Amino acid sequence: MRLVRLSAPAGLENLKLVEEDSPSKPKRGELLVRIRACSLNFHDYMVALGRKPTADGRIPLSDGAGEVVAVGDDVHEFHVGDAVVSTYWPHWLGGEPTPATKTGELGDDIDGYAREYACMPSHAFTKAPAGYTHVEAATLTCAGVTAWRSLVVCGRVKPGDTVLILGTGGVSLFALQFAKAAGARVIATSSSEQKLEKLKHLGADMLINYKAVPDWGRKAKELTDGRGVDHVVEVGGPGTLAQSIAACRMGGHIALVGILTGFAGEVSIPALFSNQIRISGISIGSRTDQEDMVRALTAHSLKPLVDRSFQLPEIAAAFQHYKSQNHFGKVCLEL
Amino acid sequence: MRLVRLSAPAGLENLKLVEEDSPSKPKRGELLVRIRACSLNFHDYMVALGRKPTADGRIPLSDGAGEVVAVGDDVHEFHVGDAVVSTYWPHWLGGEPTPATKTGELGDDIDGYAREYACMPSHAFTKAPAGYTHVEAATLTCAGVTAWRSLVVCGRVKPGDTVLILGTGGVSLFALQFAKAAGARVIATSSSEQKLEKLKHLGADMLINYKAVPDWGRKAKELTDGRGVDHVVEVGGPGTLAQSIAACRMGGHIALVGILTGFAGEVSIPALFSNQIRISGISIGSRTDQEDMVRALTAHSLKPLVDRSFQLPEIAAAFQHYKSQNHFGKVCLEL
Amino acid sequence: MRLVRLSAPAGLENLKLVEEDSPSKPKRGELLVRIRACSLNFHDYMVALGRKPTADGRIPLSDGAGEVVAVGDDVHEFHVGDAVVSTYWPHWLGGEPTPATKTGELGDDIDGYAREYACMPSHAFTKAPAGYTHVEAATLTCAGVTAWRSLVVCGRVKPGDTVLILGTGGVSLFALQFAKAAGARVIATSSSEQKLEKLKHLGADMLINYKAVPDWGRKAKELTDGRGVDHVVEVGGPGTLAQSIAACRMGGHIALVGILTGFAGEVSIPALFSNQIRISGISIGSRTDQEDMVRALTAHSLKPLVDRSFQLPEIAAAFQHYKSQNHFGKVCLEL
Amino acid sequence: MRLVRLSAPAGLENLKLVEEDSPSKPKRGELLVRIRACSLNFHDYMVALGRKPTADGRIPLSDGAGEVVAVGDDVHEFHVGDAVVSTYWPHWLGGEPTPATKTGELGDDIDGYAREYACMPSHAFTKAPAGYTHVEAATLTCAGVTAWRSLVVCGRVKPGDTVLILGTGGVSLFALQFAKAAGARVIATSSSEQKLEKLKHLGADMLINYKAVPDWGRKAKELTDGRGVDHVVEVGGPGTLAQSIAACRMGGHIALVGILTGFAGEVSIPALFSNQIRISGISIGSRTDQEDMVRALTAHSLKPLVDRSFQLPEIAAAFQHYKSQNHFGKVCLEL
Repeated sequence: MRLVRLSAPAGLENLKLVEEDSPSKPKRGELLVRIRACSLNFHDYMVALGRKPTADGRIPLSDGAGEVVAVGDDVHEFHVGDAVVSTYWPHWLGGEPTPATKTGELGDDIDGYAREYACMPSHAFTKAPAGYTHVEAATLTCAGVTAWRSLVVCGRVKPGDTVLILGTGGVSLFALQFAKAAGARVIATSSSEQKLEKLKHLGADMLINYKAVPDWGRKAKELTDGRGVDHVVEVGGPGTLAQSIAACRMGGHIALVGILTGFAGEVSIPALFSNQIRISGISIGSRTDQEDMVRALTAHSLKPLVDRSFQLPEIAAAFQHYKSQNHFGKVCLEL
Repeated sequence: MRLVRLSAPAGLENLKLVEEDSPSKPKRGELLVRIRACSLNFHDYMVALGRKPTADGRIPLSDGAGEVVAVGDDVHEFHVGDAVVSTYWPHWLGGEPTPATKTGELGDDIDGYAREYACMPSHAFTKAPAGYTHVEAATLTCAGVTAWRSLVVCGRVKPGDTVLILGTGGVSLFALQFAKAAGARVIATSSSEQKLEKLKHLGADMLINYKAVPDWGRKAKELTDGRGVDHVVEVGGPGTLAQSIAACRMGGHIALVGILTGFAGEVSIPALFSNQIRISGISIGSRTDQEDMVRALTAHSLKPLVDRSFQLPEIAAAFQHYKSQNHFGKVCLEL
Repeated sequence: MRLVRLSAPAGLENLKLVEEDSPSKPKRGELLVRIRACSLNFHDYMVALGRKPTADGRIPLSDGAGEVVAVGDDVHEFHVGDAVVSTYWPHWLGGEPTPATKTGELGDDIDGYAREYACMPSHAFTKAPAGYTHVEAATLTCAGVTAWRSLVVCGRVKPGDTVLILGTGGVSLFALQFAKAAGARVIATSSSEQKLEKLKHLGADMLINYKAVPDWGRKAKELTDGRGVDHVVEVGGPGTLAQSIAACRMGGHIALVGILTGFAGEVSIPALFSNQIRISGISIGSRTDQEDMVRALTAHSLKPLVDRSFQLPEIAAAFQHYKSQNHFGKVCLEL
Repeated sequence: MRLVRLSAPAGLENLKLVEEDSPSKPKRGELLVRIRACSLNFHDYMVALGRKPTADGRIPLSDGAGEVVAVGDDVHEFHVGDAVVSTYWPHWLGGEPTPATKTGELGDDIDGYAREYACMPSHAFTKAPAGYTHVEAATLTCAGVTAWRSLVVCGRVKPGDTVLILGTGGVSLFALQFAKAAGARVIATSSSEQKLEKLKHLGADMLINYKAVPDWGRKAKELTDGRGVDHVVEVGGPGTLAQSIAACRMGGHIALVGILTGFAGEVSIPALFSNQIRISGISIGSRTDQEDMVRALTAHSLKPLVDRSFQLPEIAAAFQHYKSQNHFGKVCLEL
């Protein structure tokens, strides 16, 4: 089978396409999956650049989708031919995370899915939503589950709530779709009028160009008649958190998922406690979260936004496209 | 002003239209409201028949809507001209109920809203949803808030969930609308093919004629591919609870709101604990619940189903129509 | 090694002590455990009698404790020599249960722990509390975790709450200890003055002889100055549920765990919803629940009550002692 | 009656003792309370210094306790002679806060309790714990409820948890007592060996001198065998938050209540989300929270720590003592 390995000292030029033997037969409790698509995420990019160190020769990419080609003993949930999608944390089956559930990060601690065949415990996958292509399914593992857990699990979004999303990254676009599915209104931000127009087509109810409106937090609050938003899916980090806090209603919820603007920053402590804001640190989600999300996607026939698919040998070009920030929707690989 | 008083020993024939002085001026913290519409509920009917004893001369009806005509000192939330709707428990402002919050039941412990003017503490009302007629607003207090608390507050309904509703009473029709707004699928039951057709037009995804399918609980479970429903809004009581339990998925939620089929009945204890079902006894909801519901109704431009409106002097006829079970949607009064 | 197998058609006389080869070596992810003690539970008794049918030759008993004698590859949580205790549902690691997590019931779906050696996935065990004998540890799996989940996880017991426990079974005695550890007051019931005295020594704050006070629900409510109890750990089922409902405060919580008095019974529906009672069906708990409980037991140096230990060949005698209802505390086996 | 008014432009020298008519008679829904004690809090101190501007002539102090001397119509919860304690937010009766519930801050928006008699709506008070002096009761309103909401309501502390408290302020000392009552272990910090000794006598299980151990967050984590603490009651603010984050276990909870070390500061965003930490902004709590706390205090016969009581005319001296940071326990006034 063909696969990609990342040689030391990492860097996009060290993503090497190689040919190796395929795994032959799943053991008890395992699935053999023909991986058909992967998607790229910020974490994969950090690994590929070597900013998140990993073992020499690591197979990259945490998100994989494909079809089951063989089933080990004692696996009852899956059958040959099932379309499946990988979970991010193979040991986090449900409930709250613990150090034990946050091990075995794919494409980092252990080999990821930039390979044509993978043999894994069956609980490292869920079924894909009905009617999905493999490329569509491959977008869900990281970006989809992060958005779902942010809004539905930790945020407990309800009809009539207002959700603020930042920019047009994968998590934000999923958050827009889940918020609308849950009956909430969405305020979306971007620095590009063209992207704002696309966000509107996707269902965003109110738009803010954050370049034109630097105090977009206050603006978002105004757009809710001064009440403040119920939820922020905070993907920016230190560069945006102060505005996100300003946007919140009393008792509002901020799902803290990202560091796109840096790693540390100033927070106004009185704003947090006098406004009784809840902050939840989000690190993807559990297998149960993914199953619930898949059920919702199937019920709503919701499809993710795929910007562009590359072939496996073009993995470096795919990362360069990812880096350019010109994409709208997920960047994927087909195998 | 005109109003209705229920003379001892109660009975529909003892609902008397009378003329009395209007209240003149709200005290500190109070509103004077011109009541424009009321709706009828099971509890009102029990009071009118004398099955739920009350004081001689009580003004009936818990649900009232109208417009603010005067505002007492220290009231900042409302202004003259605001369209408002009453809350069921005037002392239950938010959080979980306590004996203290469950006092002052309108049209029972104290006078209700079958009167043209009422002077009440401002927290006994919330704003009405934008674009509502007074008749539409008057449907919300009891039936709307009960359905909202059942599904959203206690049930924490989420996209992709399946909700089972029983029959076509006011709570069930609101539950159908809220479930759809929250991204859930709805299984609806009725014994009338004509009503099932109407439920379908309102958005029900799956229908069961419970006369044709006596084990409709099992049928509902089948309709979810054997997984079971996530929520039941249980308005029937002992005559339906066993089927509702049978319909549930493991860990499913039953909001217990009604006794339409009687007051006590057999429950299978092992079914409850081996399937880890949660039951929440629901008794309408808090003012905060009503505010959240109003926000959702406004955001979704959702309108309640009004079967028919009577004039205030026709209150006995209105109750007879209510009793006939031929209505589909709420039975209301206009003042 | 020595072990016990239950031959068809079950019955205590068909519990046969046999000698078989020991498992040799744990596979990847597995532990080899030298089982040193088991405890008996109602479910084990139903299986032994054949009222809960199982496969011919099944090794009985769900609760086992012992020490790790070998560790498979990729197991980092345990080391040789660790004292461990089995979990009830080997696939329910955390969060809410699903049909997938409620499979592999030990001593029923698969072989239990009435054997000297067992090879199991490492997540089928947790560490035992510090300072526990194996016999003490073996009491935790079923009775301990059920009480913990009832009060702490689903009930969210807090200081100042009042907890009502029924009788002196294993779950009730653990519930008494956990309630006291959490700062709650305990009302305990029994029909025996002698057992009531023992309950008092264990920390029960108030006692009711339910034979002398048949309406013990009302009595429990009185003992809380008319407010009602916050929690009932309902182990009785239909014969006790009506009194348990009567004992509850508004918004109180009933953890429904048992059927000692039968399988189905009458419930007053209006009492449930007008008093807004929550009922949670409890079916033991997850591995995470067990880990949290073990941490609490260690922190509080809490020890379970062991009534009596039998040797493995005396398993039938142990069940007869269990059946006699004369025990106070858990009935155990030593291997 | 005697009372204190704070004249513009504030400052301790502008706290003037005056004599005015007593309120005569409570209106409907009101209580007339003979205030017997007050306690001092950081917010009162900011108001007294003029850093938190208020109206000229404002009566200061949010926390008051005393006895009911007259009861208005329709008040059923209280009787003449009842010992009562004020609530911080007179309109926040239960549930989550909203802008409407966070109005009427005593001693700031409206007159506080540095007066011998106060006429207030009955829901602005709860009963005091059994066996409390008025001085003891007066410590509860702000510091007690903040600690209770931090740990019990938002933190859902449970037996076996570890709680980290910072320093020896009023909130921290209450948090220590509530944590122990709930079955948790406590790690306490101080820069004074003498105060650490006192904390040990109060029940702290582990102690850290934060002057000697500047990375006390890491140290606290070590003291939990590397797992991390379950809860931090974060009273320091920006100067301590980074260490508090370092101390937390995965999924740990930080109750953000204070700004003793400043108003804004740097936060490490990746530490928050990769460790999935929850932060709750706490702003005292609701009347229901206070009632639950009073019940717990009564059940456990827990007494607050009172450092010293001053007489009403000594209010400026009391604030100077408060400012000196030499106190251990609450600083109070007697009237």
